[in-house]
Amino acid sequence: MSKNLYFYDEGDPSNKRLLGGKGAGLCAMTQLGIPVPPGFVITTEVCRKYYELGEQLPEGLMDEVKQAMKKLEDLTGKKFGDPTNPLLVSVRSGAMLSMPGMMDTILNLGLNDETVQGLIKQTKNERFAYDSYRRFIHMFGKVVLGIPGEKFDEIFESWKKKVGAEKDTDLSAKDLEGIVKEFKKLVAKETGQEFPTDPWKQLELAIAAVFKSWNNKRAIEYRNFYKIPHDLGTAVNIVTMVFGNMGEDSGTGVAFTRNPATGEKGLYGEFLFNAQGEDVVAGIRTPLKISELQQRWPEIYSQLVEISDKLEQYYRDMQDMEFTVERGKLYMLQTRTGKRTAQAAVKIAVDMATEGLITREEAILRIEPAQLIQLLHKQVDPKARVKIIAKGLNASPGAAVGKVVFDSERAKELGEQGEKVILVRPETNPDDVGGIIASQGVLTSRGGMTSHAAVVTRGLGKPAVVGCEALDIDLEKKEIRVGDMVIKEGDLITINGTTGDVILGEAPLIEPGFSKELLTLLQWCDEVKRLENWANADYPRDAQKARELGAQGIGLCRTEHMFFEPERLPIFREVILEESPEKRRELLKTLQQFQKSDFKEILRIMDGLPVVIRLLDPPLHEFLPRYEKLLEEVLTRKLSGDKEKLKEVEELLKRVEEMREANPMMGLRGCRLGITRPEINEMQVRAIMEAACELRREGKNPRPEIMIPLVSHVNELKVVREQLERVAREVMEQYGVKVEYKFGTMIEVPRAALTADEIAEHAEFFSFGTNDLTQMTFAFSRDDAERSFLFQYVEKRILSNDPFQVLDRVGVGKLMRIAVELGRKRRPDLEIGICGEHGGDPESIEFCHEIGLNYVSCSPFRIPVARLAAAQAALRSKPDRERYL
Amino acid sequence: MSKNLYFYDEGDPSNKRLLGGKGAGLCAMTQLGIPVPPGFVITTEVCRKYYELGEQLPEGLMDEVKQAMKKLEDLTGKKFGDPTNPLLVSVRSGAMLSMPGMMDTILNLGLNDETVQGLIKQTKNERFAYDSYRRFIHMFGKVVLGIPGEKFDEIFESWKKKVGAEKDTDLSAKDLEGIVKEFKKLVAKETGQEFPTDPWKQLELAIAAVFKSWNNKRAIEYRNFYKIPHDLGTAVNIVTMVFGNMGEDSGTGVAFTRNPATGEKGLYGEFLFNAQGEDVVAGIRTPLKISELQQRWPEIYSQLVEISDKLEQYYRDMQDMEFTVERGKLYMLQTRTGKRTAQAAVKIAVDMATEGLITREEAILRIEPAQLIQLLHKQVDPKARVKIIAKGLNASPGAAVGKVVFDSERAKELGEQGEKVILVRPETNPDDVGGIIASQGVLTSRGGMTSHAAVVTRGLGKPAVVGCEALDIDLEKKEIRVGDMVIKEGDLITINGTTGDVILGEAPLIEPGFSKELLTLLQWCDEVKRLENWANADYPRDAQKARELGAQGIGLCRTEHMFFEPERLPIFREVILEESPEKRRELLKTLQQFQKSDFKEILRIMDGLPVVIRLLDPPLHEFLPRYEKLLEEVLTRKLSGDKEKLKEVEELLKRVEEMREANPMMGLRGCRLGITRPEINEMQVRAIMEAACELRREGKNPRPEIMIPLVSHVNELKVVREQLERVAREVMEQYGVKVEYKFGTMIEVPRAALTADEIAEHAEFFSFGTNDLTQMTFAFSRDDAERSFLFQYVEKRILSNDPFQVLDRVGVGKLMRIAVELGRKRRPDLEIGICGEHGGDPESIEFCHEIGLNYVSCSPFRIPVARLAAAQAALRSKPDRERYL
Repeated sequence: MSKNLYFYDEGDPSNKRLLGGKGAGLCAMTQLGIPVPPGFVITTEVCRKYYELGEQLPEGLMDEVKQAMKKLEDLTGKKFGDPTNPLLVSVRSGAMLSMPGMMDTILNLGLNDETVQGLIKQTKNERFAYDSYRRFIHMFGKVVLGIPGEKFDEIFESWKKKVGAEKDTDLSAKDLEGIVKEFKKLVAKETGQEFPTDPWKQLELAIAAVFKSWNNKRAIEYRNFYKIPHDLGTAVNIVTMVFGNMGEDSGTGVAFTRNPATGEKGLYGEFLFNAQGEDVVAGIRTPLKISELQQRWPEIYSQLVEISDKLEQYYRDMQDMEFTVERGKLYMLQTRTGKRTAQAAVKIAVDMATEGLITREEAILRIEPAQLIQLLHKQVDPKARVKIIAKGLNASPGAAVGKVVFDSERAKELGEQGEKVILVRPETNPDDVGGIIASQGVLTSRGGMTSHAAVVTRGLGKPAVVGCEALDIDLEKKEIRVGDMVIKEGDLITINGTTGDVILGEAPLIEPGFSKELLTLLQWCDEVKRLENWANADYPRDAQKARELGAQGIGLCRTEHMFFEPERLPIFREVILEESPEKRRELLKTLQQFQKSDFKEILRIMDGLPVVIRLLDPPLHEFLPRYEKLLEEVLTRKLSGDKEKLKEVEELLKRVEEMREANPMMGLRGCRLGITRPEINEMQVRAIMEAACELRREGKNPRPEIMIPLVSHVNELKVVREQLERVAREVMEQYGVKVEYKFGTMIEVPRAALTADEIAEHAEFFSFGTNDLTQMTFAFSRDDAERSFLFQYVEKRILSNDPFQVLDRVGVGKLMRIAVELGRKRRPDLEIGICGEHGGDPESIEFCHEIGLNYVSCSPFRIPVARLAAAQAALRSKPDRERYL
Repeated sequence: MSKNLYFYDEGDPSNKRLLGGKGAGLCAMTQLGIPVPPGFVITTEVCRKYYELGEQLPEGLMDEVKQAMKKLEDLTGKKFGDPTNPLLVSVRSGAMLSMPGMMDTILNLGLNDETVQGLIKQTKNERFAYDSYRRFIHMFGKVVLGIPGEKFDEIFESWKKKVGAEKDTDLSAKDLEGIVKEFKKLVAKETGQEFPTDPWKQLELAIAAVFKSWNNKRAIEYRNFYKIPHDLGTAVNIVTMVFGNMGEDSGTGVAFTRNPATGEKGLYGEFLFNAQGEDVVAGIRTPLKISELQQRWPEIYSQLVEISDKLEQYYRDMQDMEFTVERGKLYMLQTRTGKRTAQAAVKIAVDMATEGLITREEAILRIEPAQLIQLLHKQVDPKARVKIIAKGLNASPGAAVGKVVFDSERAKELGEQGEKVILVRPETNPDDVGGIIASQGVLTSRGGMTSHAAVVTRGLGKPAVVGCEALDIDLEKKEIRVGDMVIKEGDLITINGTTGDVILGEAPLIEPGFSKELLTLLQWCDEVKRLENWANADYPRDAQKARELGAQGIGLCRTEHMFFEPERLPIFREVILEESPEKRRELLKTLQQFQKSDFKEILRIMDGLPVVIRLLDPPLHEFLPRYEKLLEEVLTRKLSGDKEKLKEVEELLKRVEEMREANPMMGLRGCRLGITRPEINEMQVRAIMEAACELRREGKNPRPEIMIPLVSHVNELKVVREQLERVAREVMEQYGVKVEYKFGTMIEVPRAALTADEIAEHAEFFSFGTNDLTQMTFAFSRDDAERSFLFQYVEKRILSNDPFQVLDRVGVGKLMRIAVELGRKRRPDLEIGICGEHGGDPESIEFCHEIGLNYVSCSPFRIPVARLAAAQAALRSKPDRERYL
């Protein structure tokens, strides 16, 4: 039989799986010679045995615990259950992966009517002893015996009322002794049994209760969300109690080895004299900044600094520590890797690498790419003083300010008038999507990280705080009640989707910026990544932004918007409706001038870098008035007898009807247009090549890559390309210059991927259009799926992710692998990239690295995330990657 | 250097590639001791050289030809170009694969003003000699010199007019001599040179002209259509002329070794005394039936019978022979495998196998499955006397009778009134599809086998005759002029899409039937095939038909039509619109009763055989009124101030609008309905299982297989199946019986194919839904593609076939291979079939055999074709398949 428990001087600090995070941390500190109250840890293995036995403690465990307690008694000179010098302990959970607040903890265990007398003797403080006792009964009653906490609160509050106490501290020792009695009565009434006075019984029940809390509902949900395995189990730590509330030579504090908000080096945290951990949370007194201890208690401060250094050296990362000073002696109660803001994460990683504490590779791997996204959104100014009125789940990052509105119609109405609004709903559903789009951000009182509001806002890149249960949203009265505050429709609020904060009024927001550490980090990334980072940019301003953010090319320049500009649309409509090819060509000449200047500007900005320009892709009817609108107009004119324009509208209706499609996604679009309406493609290629030739004459180096969309059969590409190559050559001859250009295709239809060898024969580059490829591979029309069933699919875990956000490696990914393999077999120097939205998703980028793409292309804004993700992918795939992971 | 020409006694009769079909046949006959006029063949290799040299005869060729002619002179005792005893030859094309009428032939070569005198001497028939001479100049002028044939016709006709000749035979020798002079003048005028009188020059020019005709436009088009390689080239046969028009001891005929219409054994054909081949075609005199020769000319008849037997023994197939009797001596001029009707093909194959001439396997491989389709359509009664007024291309098989209409609108109008109409158009376009559907068949005067009318009617299974150029269709006057006949709108005509005949009036049609030979053949097929043949059947009557035609199961029973029945639709609409799940379940109970009786009947008919029932698949909005209709109604009511029903319709419009989808093909349908609206699936499974349990109680053996459609991710299948398995078990417990049932899925989404291993974990069978799979793999919405670009794709040869008719092996087929391989790896006994339309297409069936499916399922009507195709696939894939091919 393996060992069930370890004293902190004997457990292996690196074995978090066995000892839990807290236990391992205490072992580490003990073994580093850092003062820790004596204690031991019952392993997670015992927890697993507990569940195997059907929620029973293994036989013999309590005998081992008793022996361990004996040793604790020896170490402390106190005695468990002793009426004169009682040993008190805390019983704390501690799993391998941190699950803050999800499981239970019991303090002051060992108290009963007799030992409380001993505590009075030890501390000479009757009030303190009874306060500890009532806290213990409350906690034990709730956690171990399952009595609702509110029932204890009611007794406590009514006692306060009875004696006219305003604050808890107004209660006397006698009051607390009375409350203890009441509490015990409550326990007897609720459980039908007396409160267990035997400390050993208390200990056994508490250990079992901590194990049981591993599988409470919120813990299970938490693990589901964070994909933590359910069979890890928790350890139980049994630690000698130390008290920070034994007078002015005592106190308690929390400290980070570096500033978790900014990353700045140096102790950062809070300290309260004569207080316990709970008091810090209760916020009754304002704590000191840790730095103030330097003046006020230099011995303790210097000890802390020394410990902090030791721990950073040991863990090679920023630590978050809890400690207590009991009568002048410092005890460390916990250390763990500290959570930090994105900004801090970057600074700490870069600083530590500069300090030589970690390698540059480690620094790169320390940053969650998703976290970096925070830095690319507006943030609440961390220096601002704001009034946080509630906290929900940080479902979609960024901060937004707006007027509160309670329904989507109103949001759309105001949104259209240019008002900034925040949509506030108990929860959202597919009907709200329009309202969400019209809003700056969303706030809900229900739902979790995968709720509708969360999924949709993340997709849209809008901030959201969800599941903010403190809010009482009254749709009838159109108000939010929170505490005793009331917020009405039209009131200004700020939501911080990065932190989950809900803030009253307009908080000052700061634009995303790049710290010098981030720039350093990204530079390091560029040194290790193999994937290039390109950007999707339709406009010169996007291209400009992309180049600033480090884009190495444009992976997708869509040309359709160019036809939607107000002065161009009427001409293009004429082109579409005109029957004579000659007249169409005539009309297209005007558009060609517009297109040429569009392309010229982008090519100029990207001078020397490749620019992939996709030829017109959407079905032509998208450029005509909507069928329903025309039908309505015709009917209205008919019924009102207005015959004047009727014939004209009727004619247009007929044409639009002819062009309507049952499934436009799979209809006459992409290269199919190039085959049935070649003059449009020809015009576009002429515009691209003329733009490039003119730049070439100016001495620039434009590198257009012309992309033919929606190819499913090699012959489509062949026919279209041959015709367009002719145009390209013609233009170059006309200008008398040579331009370096390529022809290639989107791989966005399953058949193209499956026959990539044939297609590579006629394509110099492939670009995975994973949006459409995902649609076809799943037979999911994105518009329809996201509106109807896709959300349910993610919620019911039929799909682990929305495949439009995270690339489906198993299905779509398999097609991509096939395409890369076949394509490169036929043309070894084939340039392959991805221009679907997945090109900005870190997980998907890792996959793109794995299958050997040349580049990933994403929105300019996402480039830094993609650079980091590309670098991490390269590091993780290194043969010696173990070093970094 | 290889040999350029072969005498018929030295060429290898099996080398059709080198000698062409005609040359090889003449070699075979010569070497079998059958009388053939002396001659030789210039190989196809020379033709290829001719093209390599830029349309030049290879050097030295004419020297070889001259030597060969010398030998011919020796054999015949005549002399080429000799004014007293001239040798005349025919120069005929003859490619490896028969291309009837596509290339050129020249008869009587060697005639000039001098040799014609020799011919007069030889034949003692001046008229015959000049007639031969004028025919030669006409033919040579047209074929070799490129003078339009009409110009010769004009001269000829005006001469007839001048001398008052009614028929050609009214012209005297002098007249013909005069015409010869005129013809020579015409040649001089058209070419600027005298008609070549040197026979050697004539021969050289004629050989080159035959080679050149290999690449004339119609020959190229013919080869394109029949997929004959363009580089085969033609051979040239130079054969001593024999004349059947040398008196009553001469004659000419055509004979088949068996009846090409019925397949009956025995000589079948026609004979004309004192005539040349051309005269048979011209139809001036009514020919004798060959059988009459038995009485009239027994020596010749018995020679023919003997030759016929010899050739059948040699070729092991029915032969189509041409022959001439010159002054009592029989010469065979050609033999080739005879074309035959489907009916004859079946009888001949079965008879020959029974006779021991060929094996059963060969018999099976002799029948083109596509040909068998003819037997499954209505046919013009072959015994009926009909008036054929024109002949076009037999674009889509079957016969139809109807009133002539000239536009699609009118066709729809009359069609809706129950009138039978034939749509007659110069050509059709996508706007005509509605009219085509409303018609019995289509007749066009333009377009080929891949024209719009041809493609669409074949798809619809309607008869069509296209490209019938003899028809002058006048859309203005609404009449067809053909010769001097006028057919008006409303007149009855019959079209025979199997033969291309256009028949005046109502021809008697016969229903398709099964001869005993066909039944025998199909039985042989069943003995060799490995694939099972299942049928797609939604109704009991289809199941009945399917079982009669040999179906071994139902591969697809669609359930959606069951909801469209008039008494059920209103209930189902309520189900769709009802918000409360309880009320929905209540309403569904009524539908369950209907469904149960549907299923029970089908399962009863298919007793003992598997029946795959697909759960509801289409989007629910298909069962609601169309959006456009509702919008129109709402607007009309609004504008007319009719508020009574307005609210109700508006409400419905709103619901329908909510359910509308951008791309319904890829929206909320299939198993997605099962997940979002589980009660419908549950009802269906309950109905299926109750029906099966009731039959089981009656002692029957129902074998339902429940198919879950549109699965893209294994979890969809898992979730839906688990829920429905529960229902199935419940029903069986309730009835206290056990039913053999399966759960499985359609493979119709690319992702399902790509992840078939995961899916096979939860599916006991796969059924390839290749209609949808083709749509998704190509990103072709069939509705839209066939209406807009797909036709152009086939016409421009971007695609070799409509992939909805012939399975795309390269793309869709690759997915199928992947799915079969992965699926069987996980579950070796996985039952895999296909239920898309491809399951009835022979080429696709061969592929299904190749990749190892268990069955193919097609419409009941197609089962015989599919049985044959399955047998052929099995034979072709045998290791010793060379024997059969």
